Amino acid sequence: MLNQHYIDMCGQKSVIRELFTYGSERAKEIGYENVFDYSLGNPSVPAPATFTKEMIRLLQESEPVQLHGYSPSLGIDSVREAVAASLNDRFDMHYEKKDVFMVSGAAGAIAHAARAVTVPGDEILTFAPFFPEYRPYISETGAVLKVVPADISSFQINFDAFVEMLNEKVMAVLINTPNNPSGIVYSTETIDKLAMILKEKEEEFGHPIYIISDEPYREIVFEGVDAPFVAAHYNNTITCYSFSKSLSLPGERIGYIAVNPACEDSALLVDMFGQISRGIGHNCPPSIIQLAVSKCLYETSDLSVYETNKNILYTELTKMGFEIVEPGGTFYMFPKALEDDAVAFSNKAKELDLLLVPSNSFGVNGHFRISYCIPTEKVERSIPVFQKLADMYL
Amino acid sequence: MLNQHYIDMCGQKSVIRELFTYGSERAKEIGYENVFDYSLGNPSVPAPATFTKEMIRLLQESEPVQLHGYSPSLGIDSVREAVAASLNDRFDMHYEKKDVFMVSGAAGAIAHAARAVTVPGDEILTFAPFFPEYRPYISETGAVLKVVPADISSFQINFDAFVEMLNEKVMAVLINTPNNPSGIVYSTETIDKLAMILKEKEEEFGHPIYIISDEPYREIVFEGVDAPFVAAHYNNTITCYSFSKSLSLPGERIGYIAVNPACEDSALLVDMFGQISRGIGHNCPPSIIQLAVSKCLYETSDLSVYETNKNILYTELTKMGFEIVEPGGTFYMFPKALEDDAVAFSNKAKELDLLLVPSNSFGVNGHFRISYCIPTEKVERSIPVFQKLADMYL
Repeated sequence: MLNQHYIDMCGQKSVIRELFTYGSERAKEIGYENVFDYSLGNPSVPAPATFTKEMIRLLQESEPVQLHGYSPSLGIDSVREAVAASLNDRFDMHYEKKDVFMVSGAAGAIAHAARAVTVPGDEILTFAPFFPEYRPYISETGAVLKVVPADISSFQINFDAFVEMLNEKVMAVLINTPNNPSGIVYSTETIDKLAMILKEKEEEFGHPIYIISDEPYREIVFEGVDAPFVAAHYNNTITCYSFSKSLSLPGERIGYIAVNPACEDSALLVDMFGQISRGIGHNCPPSIIQLAVSKCLYETSDLSVYETNKNILYTELTKMGFEIVEPGGTFYMFPKALEDDAVAFSNKAKELDLLLVPSNSFGVNGHFRISYCIPTEKVERSIPVFQKLADMYL
Repeated sequence: MLNQHYIDMCGQKSVIRELFTYGSERAKEIGYENVFDYSLGNPSVPAPATFTKEMIRLLQESEPVQLHGYSPSLGIDSVREAVAASLNDRFDMHYEKKDVFMVSGAAGAIAHAARAVTVPGDEILTFAPFFPEYRPYISETGAVLKVVPADISSFQINFDAFVEMLNEKVMAVLINTPNNPSGIVYSTETIDKLAMILKEKEEEFGHPIYIISDEPYREIVFEGVDAPFVAAHYNNTITCYSFSKSLSLPGERIGYIAVNPACEDSALLVDMFGQISRGIGHNCPPSIIQLAVSKCLYETSDLSVYETNKNILYTELTKMGFEIVEPGGTFYMFPKALEDDAVAFSNKAKELDLLLVPSNSFGVNGHFRISYCIPTEKVERSIPVFQKLADMYL
């Protein structure tokens, strides 16, 4: 009498993970250097030295009972204060400790935010292309995720489709900028227009509509790109942050939720997040990791390799005839496939040991995702393989 | 339009946490050394040196991208294998990697186990006295927690009451041995009788009834006490373990679930736990902590202080006339209060700056919990204060 719902979920595993697993197996057969694995968003540059040094210092110098003791359930006070201060410094905001909740990454942050602002049956809108794991995060809360079709010319927001889908059951919109999988950064114009529409609809429907802003790529923005801090443009913003990409710590499960204090229920929301964690038995991220990242709030890993890789791929693939909206950040790119069937295209690439994720699970047809968080020399060696793939469509 | 359910939960905070917070405030007024805070189960002895050394070694010697990379969602393979091997060595079991799921502590483990083996409306039975946080862990799954009244003469299981409460909606029984708050360890006789009844009822009802065995105190067992490994006595056992108490790491959020491979659905259950984690966005415990604890599977902190403290308190309080079932493990004791109203009793103690948790939230009236994970010298200095309290009832 096991719960059939979770058994069914076992059958719906991530396409990305499966391609990555295939790549790992294939590497054992033909050598790691011969598989051009663009499947997974796993950072390829080391964590900053400050993080490692601070971890070692904590282990060597702290009293262990204190260091490894229970963290308060909303996070360690000094860490919450440091996060608030860094956001205020960097984005001219007014966060306080009470507005910050420490959580084990953006995934947990989004799931918590969705639980707090919906009841089962409510709707959350997101914009294609979108990270496919949003589906389980939202559906497990009982809310309904609806996907606004993409504007494939720019991968900014398709506002006409959005306005049509807004209705009084919509309690939140979930955005991701810089975006996985497109690499696009929403412009100030896009964010301001989104904010304006939401304010009008809040008025019309008589309830708040939150922006749940998923920002793990906030620090990976390329030269000259306009990358507004979303909460500065809309009061009812719940910012979901992860240190996975900026500090190259995806395995250490650390992030935070910051609720704009201008949002009416900021402190209550943070308290609710604590209760949500309590119920699922995940009471706080690890103490030592909280303390160590709090010393790295003004720095990142050396993220420049991602821009180098983007430039090579964008230039070379465009030359080959691929249509690409140029990424403004992240380590993703989302070109148009050379045939309508993205899966068939991805399978052809796979025969060349070039692993590209077909676009369907991101809510868009006929595209593919390249995760270029791999060494630049490998990116360079992959260019002739992309050429071979393109030649198959001549 | 926030979710009222979580707002309501904010108002039902833990009595234990509130007493602990009072104690911290009071310590600022009259000095830490003058508050006899027996409220919280926070280990008082340091983590073993092996843990600290291994953490530092990993940080100094590992390639950081590898070290801090995503862990597979069921846990790091080598860690799962090491956990299985250590259980086999220590308890003569036959676990394999596929039977082990790494999770962020026993709380998450219990919540996952309950989700996997119930659907909303199903029942889970537990035995008083019990850890009060079981209520949110179970109720948030949609299952119903029912509490079997205590056998207050021994704090073993009240089998008459148990058999009466067993019905076909019961999918699991949640046990905790060594027990928080009583400190009692279920004997082999108790476990075997429980197993026998459950097997009969499985037959009768035509479905499995799982034991969810909450074992964070497994390593804290006093001299000469019979402490059977539950899964060795009942196939359908889901063992929920935390390293919080044995390695003094409560803040680092690390534990595991081990499903007895003799249980029909062992590998499926582990896969389901992965999906449950995925849905709530808590994809795995931190990589570095997983790796470090995997080197400490055959050791513990120096736990002897807890037995020393138990001996002092048991001897001295018994002399004063307190009725106590002598603990067999943990760092808890659950004496009978000197008046029927445990809260009134605890309040009288509080006036003497002696912080004792009243028994009501543990599902038993007229008792109180002592958490003696504090320095022995403080235990000794507290004895005259207990005497003063006892004298108030002469």
